[in-house]
Amino acid sequence: MNKIDDISGTEYKYVGSRPVRPDGLDKVTGKAQFGADLYAPGMLFAKILRSPHAHARILSIDTGKAEALDGVKAVLTSTDLQPGEGADDLEDDMDHVLENVMARGKALYDGHAVAAVAATSASIARKALKLIDVEYEVLPHVTDIEKAIAPDAPVIREDMYTQDMDPKPDKPSNIARRMEIGHGDIEAGFEKADFIFERRFRTEAAHQGYIEPHACLADYRSDGHAEIWCCTQGHFMVRSACAALLGMELSKLRVTASEIGGGFGGKTTVFIEPVALALSRKCGRPVKLVMDRDEVFRASGPTPSSVVDVKIGANKDGVITAGFAELWFQGGAFPGSVIDLGTMCAFACYDLENVKAIGWDVVVNRPKSAAYRAPGAPMAAFAVESGLDDLAERIGIDPVDFRLKNAAEEGSTAAFGPKFRRIGLKETLEAAKASDHYNSPLGPNQGRGIACGFWFNFGGTTSASIKIELDGTAMVTVGTPDIGGSRASMCLMAAETLGIPYENVRCVIADTSLLPYSATTEGSRTTHSSGMATVYASENAIKVMCGRAAKIWGIPEDAVDWKDGHARPSGANAGEFEPMSLADIAKKAHETGGAIAGHCEFEAGKVGQSFGTHIADAEIDPETGFTKIVRYTVIQDAGRAIHPSYVEGQYQGGAVQGIGWALNEEYIYGEDGRLQNAGFLDYRMPVCSDVPMIETEIVEVPNAGHPFGVRGVGETPIVPPLGAIGNALSHAIGTRMDTIPMSPPRVLEAVSGG
Amino acid sequence: MNKIDDISGTEYKYVGSRPVRPDGLDKVTGKAQFGADLYAPGMLFAKILRSPHAHARILSIDTGKAEALDGVKAVLTSTDLQPGEGADDLEDDMDHVLENVMARGKALYDGHAVAAVAATSASIARKALKLIDVEYEVLPHVTDIEKAIAPDAPVIREDMYTQDMDPKPDKPSNIARRMEIGHGDIEAGFEKADFIFERRFRTEAAHQGYIEPHACLADYRSDGHAEIWCCTQGHFMVRSACAALLGMELSKLRVTASEIGGGFGGKTTVFIEPVALALSRKCGRPVKLVMDRDEVFRASGPTPSSVVDVKIGANKDGVITAGFAELWFQGGAFPGSVIDLGTMCAFACYDLENVKAIGWDVVVNRPKSAAYRAPGAPMAAFAVESGLDDLAERIGIDPVDFRLKNAAEEGSTAAFGPKFRRIGLKETLEAAKASDHYNSPLGPNQGRGIACGFWFNFGGTTSASIKIELDGTAMVTVGTPDIGGSRASMCLMAAETLGIPYENVRCVIADTSLLPYSATTEGSRTTHSSGMATVYASENAIKVMCGRAAKIWGIPEDAVDWKDGHARPSGANAGEFEPMSLADIAKKAHETGGAIAGHCEFEAGKVGQSFGTHIADAEIDPETGFTKIVRYTVIQDAGRAIHPSYVEGQYQGGAVQGIGWALNEEYIYGEDGRLQNAGFLDYRMPVCSDVPMIETEIVEVPNAGHPFGVRGVGETPIVPPLGAIGNALSHAIGTRMDTIPMSPPRVLEAVSGG
Repeated sequence: MNKIDDISGTEYKYVGSRPVRPDGLDKVTGKAQFGADLYAPGMLFAKILRSPHAHARILSIDTGKAEALDGVKAVLTSTDLQPGEGADDLEDDMDHVLENVMARGKALYDGHAVAAVAATSASIARKALKLIDVEYEVLPHVTDIEKAIAPDAPVIREDMYTQDMDPKPDKPSNIARRMEIGHGDIEAGFEKADFIFERRFRTEAAHQGYIEPHACLADYRSDGHAEIWCCTQGHFMVRSACAALLGMELSKLRVTASEIGGGFGGKTTVFIEPVALALSRKCGRPVKLVMDRDEVFRASGPTPSSVVDVKIGANKDGVITAGFAELWFQGGAFPGSVIDLGTMCAFACYDLENVKAIGWDVVVNRPKSAAYRAPGAPMAAFAVESGLDDLAERIGIDPVDFRLKNAAEEGSTAAFGPKFRRIGLKETLEAAKASDHYNSPLGPNQGRGIACGFWFNFGGTTSASIKIELDGTAMVTVGTPDIGGSRASMCLMAAETLGIPYENVRCVIADTSLLPYSATTEGSRTTHSSGMATVYASENAIKVMCGRAAKIWGIPEDAVDWKDGHARPSGANAGEFEPMSLADIAKKAHETGGAIAGHCEFEAGKVGQSFGTHIADAEIDPETGFTKIVRYTVIQDAGRAIHPSYVEGQYQGGAVQGIGWALNEEYIYGEDGRLQNAGFLDYRMPVCSDVPMIETEIVEVPNAGHPFGVRGVGETPIVPPLGAIGNALSHAIGTRMDTIPMSPPRVLEAVSGG
Repeated sequence: MNKIDDISGTEYKYVGSRPVRPDGLDKVTGKAQFGADLYAPGMLFAKILRSPHAHARILSIDTGKAEALDGVKAVLTSTDLQPGEGADDLEDDMDHVLENVMARGKALYDGHAVAAVAATSASIARKALKLIDVEYEVLPHVTDIEKAIAPDAPVIREDMYTQDMDPKPDKPSNIARRMEIGHGDIEAGFEKADFIFERRFRTEAAHQGYIEPHACLADYRSDGHAEIWCCTQGHFMVRSACAALLGMELSKLRVTASEIGGGFGGKTTVFIEPVALALSRKCGRPVKLVMDRDEVFRASGPTPSSVVDVKIGANKDGVITAGFAELWFQGGAFPGSVIDLGTMCAFACYDLENVKAIGWDVVVNRPKSAAYRAPGAPMAAFAVESGLDDLAERIGIDPVDFRLKNAAEEGSTAAFGPKFRRIGLKETLEAAKASDHYNSPLGPNQGRGIACGFWFNFGGTTSASIKIELDGTAMVTVGTPDIGGSRASMCLMAAETLGIPYENVRCVIADTSLLPYSATTEGSRTTHSSGMATVYASENAIKVMCGRAAKIWGIPEDAVDWKDGHARPSGANAGEFEPMSLADIAKKAHETGGAIAGHCEFEAGKVGQSFGTHIADAEIDPETGFTKIVRYTVIQDAGRAIHPSYVEGQYQGGAVQGIGWALNEEYIYGEDGRLQNAGFLDYRMPVCSDVPMIETEIVEVPNAGHPFGVRGVGETPIVPPLGAIGNALSHAIGTRMDTIPMSPPRVLEAVSGG
């Protein structure tokens, strides 16, 4: 098999090729079944009643009139959604999921679910919502981080004391937790600096903006077994969460992931699935629940908004002497936002002697935040990369050279602790420097910015199986929903390992009953982890096939080797036999011992950290403040691009989402604490005409922990855009931009020196 | 684990208990989804045009008018159902399946499919059938075995020469093949006989009579992938057949088995699935195809009818000196009926010095016969057991003692070749002799008959997986559709092996994409073979859990044993640790190496042959010829009854089906060669009021080839009834009955000496 020590130069037959995507035809012909596409006999339609208040005590809920409406089969409030005897056992985060799924005592944000109805039609369900009488006591609210941490702020969670503080705080606040990382001596570092950059940056919340709203069909049977069909990034996660919230055994709940119309992290938790399941349990019929777009905005998880104070010192040689950041992220009305990840990412690109980052987890009256591509990292990178840009200018060094001088490499100690193994940041910087884009001239009102980005990439519990059919074709089974083309990648890796054509391999996503646990498709883990599991399962199938060949030839099993899709006698005493192809061995499977298969259940470790460098050219219309991105290049280390077209797609998608976030997307709350732009007309995502063709360059510095060197590519491309565009814009207008989104009004304000 | 050498006396905790059936609630509440219960967006409804002639050349098919009908999306004839380039590669049996699925050139029986239509509604499809213009040249037909083998019979297959004949025949005939088995010297044996029985027996074709007609939903995608949902005993078989007939790769076709409303062997082949799939391929939309009841009778596979000549000699001491049988079975218009199995079963119950059986495979203008519980065996046993009854009476020996004297036992050489390992025929005969039933008096017009029966029980390619969830519950996956309660049996065996409560284990049937190949649920193989696979998979999971415990304790893997659901340190150097329960190990799975699972792909051999003895009391109304079965007892060796209630259900079901076949069920063909009773009103199956409560006794002589001793129980109970009831009836009326069904007209005829 493939050696995993040094495979940089290895040439592959299938890995790295670009076959047509296997799910393409189904998706363009409308055959693919998404979350809302499944129907069950006797199915009911559910709707959720949501709080119109940002913060309110629920004094009473009268469901009588709704229940009496003809066609209504069940009305649900938080009293129906109790984990039962296991209640005390709910882990903290599950407790918050439970509270988010259906308000318990208090509505904590505009859009917080308060009750739900299942009825024979959606229109009856909607009518019934209007008949539910909720008595609220409206409470003071706060939706902004800086106001929430002010001493006079209304405290959202009366019993919440900041954790990990020394000394322990003596009164509750909206700060859930403090964390700190770093090494060296910050003060001494700043002493050595010739230049110091210090500034506060702010980013607004952005939504993942997936096309497909959350949708599910739940069917709870009278014998306590249940099934859920839903659009999710992790059906095993849905199973765990729903089983915990409803007090079910895991094996009594079967969850199938539909095709998915985007997730980007926003579908890594549950919002409606436990509600649909509890409704189904209450009325004994299958229940379909589909979010409207405004519910997606108001009540699914956007990113946190953030406030980041950054201070960076550098000497005149371009060496960073100290880096410090203090980051506040809000997780909506719930503790547990992305502060760890964001704080750890802040200085991860750089090899610093003195570095420190402090993170603060803040609660406000907003929906519970969820992951969004490299959660936390873009906000931190925006601040740090802006600072580096400013410093480079002041030092008088090229911004790429400045970063190259300080870039992390193999052996560098990350601010968050570990030493990096082999990584590819410098290679992306060098590629940027050599690129046509970086060396092209700029036009009037244009500015160019560069920025780097980092993401850990995740591993985790992973399972896969492969079986070889009698006709020599192969079927791979994984448990990670395919969002970005992972089925094609699994087939490529299996084909490469087995030595058979890509066209002979298919991949399906198993439901939770039919494959051992696999963690969610998130954190750029799927092609890496399920890919490793697929390779190991394939190697196990090869062992079986070598055994079968040995049996047919009548020689010992260890006298058979596998090469190029053939079993071959190997070694002095093996004897002389014609190599036997996979298809030949497969054909005889039932006579030689049964079906041929390989399995792998494992913990995927040795993830490959991913780095990227982006170049953005922005052009300003000084009269309107409108910014046009005229050229954009993503350069990123993929480790190994299994299917380069998909990798490029990830690079382009991350950049486009970053452009939207940088320039226009934001959650706008009114004075009343209500979200004012809960729809695609008012929440301004980029459309095709808003962006240039995103140029991409795949750098390949193989991850030594993966048989083909895969690092994972989905998260990193959204990390640099805020910084790269901020730097480009700052150069175009001659003033440092510090607030995301850099929307026309803000640009105008900056241009006018406001 | 369980020793498989001698486990007769072993006591089990879960195996042998009678938990409530896990699929019960779904089935009684209507939640269970059968073949016709799935709907797909844009689905069409298909109907099949069937030949009204028993034998006719198809001169032309004009589908123009049908295709022009509004709502018709596809019309299919045999030209659309070509295996393509692989045509030459189709194996003989698949070639016949293809011809049966859609007539090619000739319609071979009344009901033979000639064309099919897919339309937007069933009524439009039915209308379209009437618009298809088929020009037939009606040919002479033959539906009866004895007429078909007569020299002047119309020859159905002009190019068919009897195989395995010496010398080779010089002209075609309706006899497809001859076979012969046996040992010793028949003539010498008859020389030694004091009594000889010789007679011709006839049985009519019977239908399995499952409640659920064949039904499927097929969806062929434009990229060449397809899915089928259908009611079948073997979804892997459906996949193999459809892939072969449509020229598809196996891994491009995903087949899911629905819940099944009975099969009894009749759903071990395809009839409508390839038609639905080809229609879907032609029009690009999902196609549902459901047989009407009359189509089930006319065009799915009943048993063969048979003619059996038997000659048995015995001496006055009650020793059988020679047994000879010549058996003709018709497989409908297709070669390949059950002659092998029927011929091999004829004398399988007895240890004979001189034995010979010749089988003849005959074709007639009838639907292609299919398996029906112990295919071929009941017809053969009817003849042989009738002969033994006659001989016992003439020798003056108790019929049970006569059989005991000649019964096969461990070491006996079967007429079909092998030596039996440990078997339980004698035990069932002794139980019969000791039974209350056998020792109870008879009333007026009553007669008592006994008969024995044998079935091989099948093994074959089998796969299973088990996974242990984080909460310590377990999920078993098998690939054999659950017809007779196998999910409960799998859970019991897994619970016993793992040492956890039955309630903590669930079992699901995987579709063809999600588990390696598993052979069809047929031949009493599922509880045996999938059961073994489940036990072996569980043992593999135990190995994983012992490894995890070793890791937690920091001791070598081989220093950990498994007992009563706990890992325990074992051996001198293992150290002192508290035993760790499955649940404790499961909880830590993700920290100790990933999900916990076990898999097994194997060829299940060492099947346990099954024998039974039945006692029947029949009462005759001499005026009408009506027969009432007043008491009936089934005694059968189960090896080990995993779930005794299901085993008793199999015994009772087999007996009831045997009673129906013995007394009333038959295919009635008119002079025109058309089936005259294609419906449950005219095809007389027994209803509850027709049968007594069937008494059962489970004998357990463990099969040494199975970890719990399972033999398989589904087939054998239908083998003895024809003989037992024939003997009972013969005693009641004083005349030997030799034709099945022994319907009132035939009984009256016999009573009146006709």
